[in-house]
Amino acid sequence: MTLKNIASKRPKLANFITEIPKGNKVMLAQAITLVESTLAEDIILANDVVENLLPLTGKSIRIGITGIPGVGKSTFIETFGKHITSLSKKIAVLAVDPSSAKTKGSILGDKTRMEELSKDSLAFIRPTATRTALGGVADRTREAILLCEAAGFEIVIIETVGVGQSETAVRNLVDFFLLLMLAGAGDELQGIKKGIMEMADTIVITKADGDNIKQANQAKTDYQYALHLFSESESGWKPGVITSSALEKKGITETWKLIKEYIEFTKSNRHFERNRTQQNLVWFHEQMGLLLQSQLIQDKNIGAQIKAYEKEIIDNKILPSRAAQKIIQTFLKQ
Amino acid sequence: MTLKNIASKRPKLANFITEIPKGNKVMLAQAITLVESTLAEDIILANDVVENLLPLTGKSIRIGITGIPGVGKSTFIETFGKHITSLSKKIAVLAVDPSSAKTKGSILGDKTRMEELSKDSLAFIRPTATRTALGGVADRTREAILLCEAAGFEIVIIETVGVGQSETAVRNLVDFFLLLMLAGAGDELQGIKKGIMEMADTIVITKADGDNIKQANQAKTDYQYALHLFSESESGWKPGVITSSALEKKGITETWKLIKEYIEFTKSNRHFERNRTQQNLVWFHEQMGLLLQSQLIQDKNIGAQIKAYEKEIIDNKILPSRAAQKIIQTFLKQ
Repeated sequence: MTLKNIASKRPKLANFITEIPKGNKVMLAQAITLVESTLAEDIILANDVVENLLPLTGKSIRIGITGIPGVGKSTFIETFGKHITSLSKKIAVLAVDPSSAKTKGSILGDKTRMEELSKDSLAFIRPTATRTALGGVADRTREAILLCEAAGFEIVIIETVGVGQSETAVRNLVDFFLLLMLAGAGDELQGIKKGIMEMADTIVITKADGDNIKQANQAKTDYQYALHLFSESESGWKPGVITSSALEKKGITETWKLIKEYIEFTKSNRHFERNRTQQNLVWFHEQMGLLLQSQLIQDKNIGAQIKAYEKEIIDNKILPSRAAQKIIQTFLKQ
Repeated sequence: MTLKNIASKRPKLANFITEIPKGNKVMLAQAITLVESTLAEDIILANDVVENLLPLTGKSIRIGITGIPGVGKSTFIETFGKHITSLSKKIAVLAVDPSSAKTKGSILGDKTRMEELSKDSLAFIRPTATRTALGGVADRTREAILLCEAAGFEIVIIETVGVGQSETAVRNLVDFFLLLMLAGAGDELQGIKKGIMEMADTIVITKADGDNIKQANQAKTDYQYALHLFSESESGWKPGVITSSALEKKGITETWKLIKEYIEFTKSNRHFERNRTQQNLVWFHEQMGLLLQSQLIQDKNIGAQIKAYEKEIIDNKILPSRAAQKIIQTFLKQ
């Protein structure tokens, strides 16, 4: 099947904008695929779909969840998700895989992840890929969030692996940022960048069960101390530390309670609204920059020139700012 | 005097490229002024000057020094600088004032700062301003560093006030990043962002004299512990903590010794060279982005459209990515 055929099999705009608000998960999934597509006609349709649904968006609680591999993200999110659906609330999980280009999404493609939650009629789980390398993690995830909201999901979780720089991008997509951490044997704070800890609105220490309880409690004290040393966050919120066990369903209701408190707190001091507006303006300006850069790089002639100048820069033969000027002059003349 | 007159009084390219390598500080200062200028003809000349001097650059140790107001940056840098000149080495201090646009550089314009060092024939002190708001702190400072190197300065210090986001930019300009901190009464780590601490290659606790010694030693222990919790830096270097007193000239030779060790260490593991190449490539790509964006914003029609779309975005009337597309389309059509 050619790409053109696939595109022609896509539902039409009218289908998307009538079906998604009904909570049609198949159509929601197709809309997210559309948003991720790199075909020019898909991009136009994707924009139309999201734009038409815009009045229905913005009403969810957007939660970023991150942690290093092995921290138990899937298990935690599944248990947390089941708790949310037990309250008759709809939850969407968008798993962002920054390494998808390299590993072909092997981490997130694992079918056994969140098996129970994925069968839940009130839940929607979906890995998201990035359209281009340029856009990075956030590029299409923003639109996927809006689509989930239009489909009536009241909680949207953005899951990332806490090893790269994607966390900063995700922080700028969500209302609340949750960091999962393990109680380790040695240095409690190793392995996760301080910058990521500083972004956290709450730290959850996972696997606080069995022989691990004492260690988890010690880690809680340590993290509480470490958090207390940080400067006050923009929201005015003081981050807390929760110990949890997905196995024993411990710390789950506590986490949800804390998130609700955070939302109430930031809505009352208007940080919630300001933060979202700010995120949208950042999105706008980022997107302008990305579109300009992609115009630049897509140009074959310019792309080759950039490579050539990079070599000269490495050999210290040209001033980087001069090389940049030459590139932009050539680009604007074309 | 009109701007054109001022420009016509500028030395010619030939003057700059013969005088600066001789260590002519007046010409060096004029070249930095040129680099900071926003006049089109100055920009061209500035590029020519720096490009011609490029073979003479790269041989200094570039040191970033930051700390909150009141930490004693000037006093420390003066004492450190005098130590360097006492070893018959030439030192340049570029004081970056991120707030210069607002305060008209009042902080750095203070004539009494580094009075002794400024009279030293082996020293050169100069505040640098940013050419445009877009460029941020780093924009012109890079070229000022190269000019100082061409003038034979063996150590170049970039001084910033550790309160904003400028530190990340400065980190990307230097080989070694030094953070000055006060031994406070209460929380030792308050007031300075964790992210800045994480960038430090060494922390110097200032004012470790008189009644303050005990507190400073306690702070040293605390910071050593805090640093030890960070993930290993890219350079492989383990940051240390030094207590110093500019008054009693304590910790100054120790700081210089540590910097030399760092340079030796990173040269032997090749981080030094890799880091500089990486910094140049970042500069190149940043500059392309900045030039494109400035083309966009300088366009009156586009500037007005951006403002209008921002209002629509705040009112949630348009998708930020769609607004960005429309702007770029209009721009490229022109």
